Amino acid sequence: MIAELEKLASRVKLSPVHRILLTTDGSITRILEALDGCEVRVETVLQEVVKATPEIAGVLQIDAREEVNYRVVNLSSCRRTLVRATSYAPLSRLEPRFKEAVMRADKPIGKIMAELEIESRREILGFSTLKASSQLARIFGIAQGELLLERSYVIIYRRAPLLYITEVFPHSFF
Amino acid sequence: MIAELEKLASRVKLSPVHRILLTTDGSITRILEALDGCEVRVETVLQEVVKATPEIAGVLQIDAREEVNYRVVNLSSCRRTLVRATSYAPLSRLEPRFKEAVMRADKPIGKIMAELEIESRREILGFSTLKASSQLARIFGIAQGELLLERSYVIIYRRAPLLYITEVFPHSFF
Repeated sequence: MIAELEKLASRVKLSPVHRILLTTDGSITRILEALDGCEVRVETVLQEVVKATPEIAGVLQIDAREEVNYRVVNLSSCRRTLVRATSYAPLSRLEPRFKEAVMRADKPIGKIMAELEIESRREILGFSTLKASSQLARIFGIAQGELLLERSYVIIYRRAPLLYITEVFPHSFF
Repeated sequence: MIAELEKLASRVKLSPVHRILLTTDGSITRILEALDGCEVRVETVLQEVVKATPEIAGVLQIDAREEVNYRVVNLSSCRRTLVRATSYAPLSRLEPRFKEAVMRADKPIGKIMAELEIESRREILGFSTLKASSQLARIFGIAQGELLLERSYVIIYRRAPLLYITEVFPHSFF
């Protein structure tokens, strides 16, 4: 993890907050709230049940074409949209109370898990950079092509991946 | 949590990294490694089995005078000692593999938990400031009376507190 981070840092200037956001095994929402001092709002952009692609199935350790809940949200502080998060969760592993909260509420995953007192662990899969598409540029209010940072991780619950999450945020924001 | 943080911020200037260190529910070791780009070493200062005081017992939800493992460590990066961490763990709740790792190895709790793939959650109890005692000043290489930040939290495992941890670090380091 350290080596991978230093490799990225040799290409892109990383602030202390970038370094933390890319590698933490804690809740990103909680960090955003601490930074801006106000509650993070979730705007659900998309929420649907889809068949897992082989890549998604591989990460989630399920059969390809198994049903997963696919969710795309924007996380915004009082000032602006800070993070675009995409998640995949196998329907077969979602307990009713968790399923209901994830599929219905405009609530960050980290908060849902804290409220339900779910014990879990996070495994960082990796991080990278990308250029803002016109869509992401619009969402963040930045110019197309601006540098974004991205990280992916799984939340493991009862020894199986419960969520495969990717988070993207503008380099210039942190 | 946000309100409490802003209250502290009205008294003491808090950097983005201070805000994160005080409130994250992720591993502090992992954050220190990301910030400095090198592995964190643990130096065990003290390690002994003691009877829980009423305060400790209350936090850990055990009977007063029950036996707890008391551990004091310094967390150091390649450059200097960054954090002094104190932990209490009820012996009755420590599984053999975890107990062995905590009581024997000079290893951060977060890393032990990740290696053993332990699923848990962290509840922040609170944070505050204090002035460096002569002992802490010497450990951190700062002047006596300098400002320190402190936070306390519990790691909950199988619905019961497994560890009660307090971390202290110099304000000027982050």
